[in-house]
Amino acid sequence: MKREFAVIGLGRFGGSICHELSKEGMDVLAIDLDEDKVNEFKNIASHAVIADTTDEKVLKEIGIRNIDHVIVAIGDNIQASILTTLMLKELGIKKITVKAQNDYHEKVLRKIGADQVVHPERDMGKRIAHSIISNNILDHLELSDDHSIVEVKAGKKMSGRSLIDLDIRAQYGCNVVAIKKDKEINVSPMATVVIEDGDVLIVIGSDIDISRFEKNLVVDDD
Amino acid sequence: MKREFAVIGLGRFGGSICHELSKEGMDVLAIDLDEDKVNEFKNIASHAVIADTTDEKVLKEIGIRNIDHVIVAIGDNIQASILTTLMLKELGIKKITVKAQNDYHEKVLRKIGADQVVHPERDMGKRIAHSIISNNILDHLELSDDHSIVEVKAGKKMSGRSLIDLDIRAQYGCNVVAIKKDKEINVSPMATVVIEDGDVLIVIGSDIDISRFEKNLVVDDD
Ligand SMILES: Nc1ncnc2c1ncn2[C@@H]1O[C@H](COP(=O)(O)OP(=O)(O)OP(=O)(O)O)[C@@H](O)[C@H]1O
Ligand SMILES: Nc1ncnc2c1ncn2[C@@H]1O[C@H](COP(=O)(O)OP(=O)(O)OP(=O)(O)O)[C@@H](O)[C@H]1O
Ligand SMILES: [Ca+2]
Ligand SMILES: [Ca+2]
Ligand SMILES: [Ca+2]
Ligand SMILES: [Ca+2]
Repeated sequence: MKREFAVIGLGRFGGSICHELSKEGMDVLAIDLDEDKVNEFKNIASHAVIADTTDEKVLKEIGIRNIDHVIVAIGDNIQASILTTLMLKELGIKKITVKAQNDYHEKVLRKIGADQVVHPERDMGKRIAHSIISNNILDHLELSDDHSIVEVKAGKKMSGRSLIDLDIRAQYGCNVVAIKKDKEINVSPMATVVIEDGDVLIVIGSDIDISRFEKNLVVDDD
Repeated sequence: MKREFAVIGLGRFGGSICHELSKEGMDVLAIDLDEDKVNEFKNIASHAVIADTTDEKVLKEIGIRNIDHVIVAIGDNIQASILTTLMLKELGIKKITVKAQNDYHEKVLRKIGADQVVHPERDMGKRIAHSIISNNILDHLELSDDHSIVEVKAGKKMSGRSLIDLDIRAQYGCNVVAIKKDKEINVSPMATVVIEDGDVLIVIGSDIDISRFEKNLVVDDD
């Protein structure tokens, strides 16, 4: 059974979701107040309609009740975002994901029954802050408050040495789970693999261990 | 030597970077046109000033030349973002990160010398689209075009079975690199660990292998 999605609000965030869901072969109804935005998505989404989703009659007319999962990506207009969510809930939509502007907005959305509330700018700000602090941390996935997976660029200190020689697990308590050499990724690296300058290591561990590993083995080349 | 940062534009994205850098003990100069925004960051950043960064004289006055890394997080006003970047470059700032609104904006930014161009809404849209397609994929880190790390909720099919019993590496070509049970994370799971319903597995592999793994072992509980 193919699930159907609707995205309300085709800004940068909503537009990107719409693009990606469509690329993955999903059935997507793209909705915005703005005619230009809707035209932009005519050839990307399965359907694209101009509609003000704060109007219950309009929501019914466009057949929103047949949709399994609705993503509300209305931005600056918090009132429109809340009103839309409330109406979707009343129409019995099973799964509703909403983009929030701030903590207050999130609290209201949860109270009226949003299933998932997301903060794209805030989350990406955190990720980019971490990659900015260390020039060598290229990407960062937070597993919990104190554990992460990071992508680090191997520096000169590691170059020419094998994983077994570097003894990262015993020395720093973290694990190298993958190694990228150019475009090739090895997701089951053996202990004998030799690290070269410019390789990228994917490392998992506690934030403290990762930061110790980084300070000792991943020197800033700048 | 402590590096110094400046964040221009304290919207949701710039504000989040400012918060996170400050939380990590970095020295941050927070800048916005808007007095209210600046007041909000008075007690968060090391310094907070009201300034229009498209004015070269103003940029010099606030001492921007002493900063190692400037993040330009001006949003809707593309012209102000470009002009600010141009001036920072002319003043000799070593590292400039800029938030782009679209591909055209990115192209111009790269031409005038931005070192890093980011698309927070677009990137987060992609991530969330992937987690939306599968109710069980909680988070997703793209390692390359065809390899990822995902967080998946263990379903009933895995419950009560050990990693060795499930034989994930041989059957699906992907590796379980960590297991979350409640708040506890095990980043070196042994083959004998028994999976329980509700555990979260962190899995690395090619997108094809991960999707096969997910279809076969991670059933949708809805
Ligand atoms: N009542 C409404 N019905 C349908 N669409 C709406 C409604 N209100 C706003 N929108 C649309 O939502 C989209 C996103 O809104 P806006 O640009 O304010 O958000 P944003 O958070 O700045 O976006 P982003 O950061 O994702 O680019 C806009 O294209 C806007 O036309
Ligand atoms: N010339 C300028 N000098 C300093 N700050 C500026 C300038 N122009 C805009 N800003 C500030 O940049 C901030 C971000 O701009 P805006 O809200 O348009 O972006 P946005 O992309 O919608 O933000 P976000 O999605 O991160 O919330 C605003 O607080 C605004 O006051
Ligand atoms: Ca953390
Ligand atoms: Ca905006
Ligand atoms: Ca935004
Ligand atoms: Ca991919």
